[in-house]
Amino acid sequence: MVSTGVTEVKTFSDEEFFNLVDENTSLFIDELGETVAIQSVSAELEEHLDDVIQMMEWASTRIQKLGGTVQMVPNPAATSDRPLPPILLGEFNTNDVSKKTVCVYGHLDVQPANIEDGWDTEPFVLTENDGKLYGRGSTDDKGPALSWLWIIELHQKMGVELPVNIKILFEGMEESGSEGVFEVIHTEGKPGKFLDDVDFFCISDNYWLGKNKPCITYALRGLAYFQLSVQGSTQDLHSGVLGGTVHEAMTDLIALMGTLVDSSGKILVEGVMADVDPVTKEEEALYDTIDFDMEEYKEDNGIKSVSDKLLHDDKKSLLMHRWRYPTLSLHGIEGAFSGKGAKTVIPREVIGKFSLRLVPDQDPKKIEKLVVDHISTEFMKLTSPNKMKCEMLHGANAWISDTKHPNYEAAANAIEKVYNGVKPDYTREGGSIPITSALENATGMNVLLLPIGACDDGAHSQNEKYNISNLVNGVKVLGIYLHELGKIKGPKPSSCKCPAPLTEEELMIPGAFAFMRGFGCKCEM
Amino acid sequence: MVSTGVTEVKTFSDEEFFNLVDENTSLFIDELGETVAIQSVSAELEEHLDDVIQMMEWASTRIQKLGGTVQMVPNPAATSDRPLPPILLGEFNTNDVSKKTVCVYGHLDVQPANIEDGWDTEPFVLTENDGKLYGRGSTDDKGPALSWLWIIELHQKMGVELPVNIKILFEGMEESGSEGVFEVIHTEGKPGKFLDDVDFFCISDNYWLGKNKPCITYALRGLAYFQLSVQGSTQDLHSGVLGGTVHEAMTDLIALMGTLVDSSGKILVEGVMADVDPVTKEEEALYDTIDFDMEEYKEDNGIKSVSDKLLHDDKKSLLMHRWRYPTLSLHGIEGAFSGKGAKTVIPREVIGKFSLRLVPDQDPKKIEKLVVDHISTEFMKLTSPNKMKCEMLHGANAWISDTKHPNYEAAANAIEKVYNGVKPDYTREGGSIPITSALENATGMNVLLLPIGACDDGAHSQNEKYNISNLVNGVKVLGIYLHELGKIKGPKPSSCKCPAPLTEEELMIPGAFAFMRGFGCKCEM
Repeated sequence: MVSTGVTEVKTFSDEEFFNLVDENTSLFIDELGETVAIQSVSAELEEHLDDVIQMMEWASTRIQKLGGTVQMVPNPAATSDRPLPPILLGEFNTNDVSKKTVCVYGHLDVQPANIEDGWDTEPFVLTENDGKLYGRGSTDDKGPALSWLWIIELHQKMGVELPVNIKILFEGMEESGSEGVFEVIHTEGKPGKFLDDVDFFCISDNYWLGKNKPCITYALRGLAYFQLSVQGSTQDLHSGVLGGTVHEAMTDLIALMGTLVDSSGKILVEGVMADVDPVTKEEEALYDTIDFDMEEYKEDNGIKSVSDKLLHDDKKSLLMHRWRYPTLSLHGIEGAFSGKGAKTVIPREVIGKFSLRLVPDQDPKKIEKLVVDHISTEFMKLTSPNKMKCEMLHGANAWISDTKHPNYEAAANAIEKVYNGVKPDYTREGGSIPITSALENATGMNVLLLPIGACDDGAHSQNEKYNISNLVNGVKVLGIYLHELGKIKGPKPSSCKCPAPLTEEELMIPGAFAFMRGFGCKCEM
Repeated sequence: MVSTGVTEVKTFSDEEFFNLVDENTSLFIDELGETVAIQSVSAELEEHLDDVIQMMEWASTRIQKLGGTVQMVPNPAATSDRPLPPILLGEFNTNDVSKKTVCVYGHLDVQPANIEDGWDTEPFVLTENDGKLYGRGSTDDKGPALSWLWIIELHQKMGVELPVNIKILFEGMEESGSEGVFEVIHTEGKPGKFLDDVDFFCISDNYWLGKNKPCITYALRGLAYFQLSVQGSTQDLHSGVLGGTVHEAMTDLIALMGTLVDSSGKILVEGVMADVDPVTKEEEALYDTIDFDMEEYKEDNGIKSVSDKLLHDDKKSLLMHRWRYPTLSLHGIEGAFSGKGAKTVIPREVIGKFSLRLVPDQDPKKIEKLVVDHISTEFMKLTSPNKMKCEMLHGANAWISDTKHPNYEAAANAIEKVYNGVKPDYTREGGSIPITSALENATGMNVLLLPIGACDDGAHSQNEKYNISNLVNGVKVLGIYLHELGKIKGPKPSSCKCPAPLTEEELMIPGAFAFMRGFGCKCEM
């Protein structure tokens, strides 16, 4: 909070804060609706670049109105042929050097959505029904991202100073591999730059394991997203007029895609499983007590009424395959006929899209080589003269953290306060948030994943929604979390997990962290 | 031509007609542009039904302005849930019972087209460049269909009566399997109905073998178009959040599509080749003399700059696989991610589209059973709990005719007159025009395929075009063809190819044709 000139500092009260959140809920919903209406679809930049930029500018204006400062960093991955949205660096500095600094991350771009895909309501019109707010981006990630601004506004309404300095990192390319953001994080992590004095990071961009019990997430799978193109001609051809005379690109592509994974989910690319960490007894035990309902899972994901069958029959095996084993999914084909009805076309060039979810200790670079080699070998077998190209569009390491870190304990305390003593489940996440390890690697500081949304929110799906109860409790948890962080004293609590970390005394020496990095600290690996 | 009250009948002169065609070319182009602008895409009826209907009404108005009569037949395949465009039955009756009657067929619907697919100009704006008219439907089939109306108009300008009675059958669903038209043809072929007194049929809806030499086409491949759907859930899922726990529909679909055809074009469905007519020595000899340039074929179809390789190295083998052997093409997938960029989705339901081109003596019904059985067997092997459904959307028999029939000779004479003595090549066609055998079967009368467009017109492809020279010579050929038909005297020249056809005398007996049908004539098979 910027200086108000008021000398008497008002004390923060949990109860007053909770009441204020409840009173302001309809204002939050209105503002969420305003941002959902901005069609910031980063996977469709040809159509929606202006919308993504508009969304970033909306956030900039909002932060400045609250008294924060904003720096809009031009996207370093942009070219003149391919403009990209800027990255937003915002700051609410309390001008109190004794206060810790937390940097919160969120993304303001969304997945594509069309009502024809099966939405019950207009995807870009936030629609309230039965305590749920339907709309693209409502839960992923506009709702959680906006929560930080609402918390700051409520502190101003209460006349209470912020317990920590807050830095904000908002981007508009998360759903398309966070293009450009990694360069910015790398640059801003350097001495004296924006991220250099950050003590803790918090990301709220994932989901609870269930619908009722809050979670804290300590591990993520990585990602290796591929596109595989086969070209047979420079123009689409009529299958009647040309069929029987040309090497059809689709035939090759379908054959190649068919060599990647089998119907039981087994990855058929040789060598991919080699670096997967073995399951320890300790780890396995974690799964025994976790609160997870398989029947509800089938119901919520629309599987119950179709096959009523999951890939694994027991909770432990299912969660392990969701969290700690790699998978390979075939997403679709660009360039082939994709409409309704019948079209008798031989497509000239078809581009298959597929991705692997990676786990410790898989390396995306190594996976890229294995997949490209596999596809090359399989393509050779086809003896096709068509042009083939297989490339990784983006890769991200899996990530794992420490649930005993002060950052995690602050979040756990906040959850207990808001949820009347309920302790959170400690979960992993099957999805990828590549920004997590990027922030940790660039700064050496701990990153917390603090989900707000419920498991059935349907991010990336039709009828994405955000429960009003999650919105309200989310604002409360994130708010209290800031105050829990404010209580932490002492040196910068690094995220170092080296065999021989520096002592607390050593860490107090100016430059000690950089010194440690120079001597083989694993944080820099 | 309707009666004008003029008693002196003006004689038709080829030269005057040719001059008039040349003088009116720009008017023809303007009118073609007017119709190309109507986006009559029958494969996208949800969006374009009104456009298809508008196109049919445009033709109705135009015919009536020329003095013809029109009957708009409600589409018998339409339902209240799925309205369909009407079928147009037009007529220019000379009121001269001594004249023969020709029925011309054309379709006014077009293939889908979007500029993003790689068009150099707006697909629905007819654009002239270097003697070519670019636009969706220019050559397939609006240009040829409109030619008949232009010929009638020119006769009126010349003050010359039409040499034959002309009946017009225009439809708006050809690119989507001619839904509803077959029922209409069946009904209208009955005694006393619209098609009953037709002596000859002429369809101009295919293409020359090359760019320079006119052709007459005497055989067509049939079609069996399939859709194969696999459903895993009722909603799209996030591959990170759900991957590893669900049976993915795409994995099954890709596996199934991969069992249909190999990279060399070999169809892998057992039994499909059983009924393919063997090649006779006579037939094989036909291919030796045919004028066909393999290098130009590669160039025109955009293969030269990609692989420069066709499926077969010699002309004879290539044309045989194009015309007289079946093929299987994979067209695309509905419901999967088909956009640019990256989307990490597990699609809930995916629908593969593929089709076979059929040849004599393959039966679409038998092919349907073989394909559905094959897919069922392959799906069993996957042991997947997902929901699978394979069905044939439409099927059409292959067709073959007789190049010595008077209808074919009339066309050959017309071509020789317009092209200064050049005799046409007699070609087959790899594509399907199911209406051909439907008309023949309903009436027993001969159907002529008289292509106007060039081989590189790009029907169904990006940058579809119609050469102005083909437009002009096409109007001339079709016009002279009518006059050649007008010279044919004697009984109805049926298309019967029975071992023991009726004599000419027997054919003069009223009802003889129907009689013959009753006694095992193959025309009715």
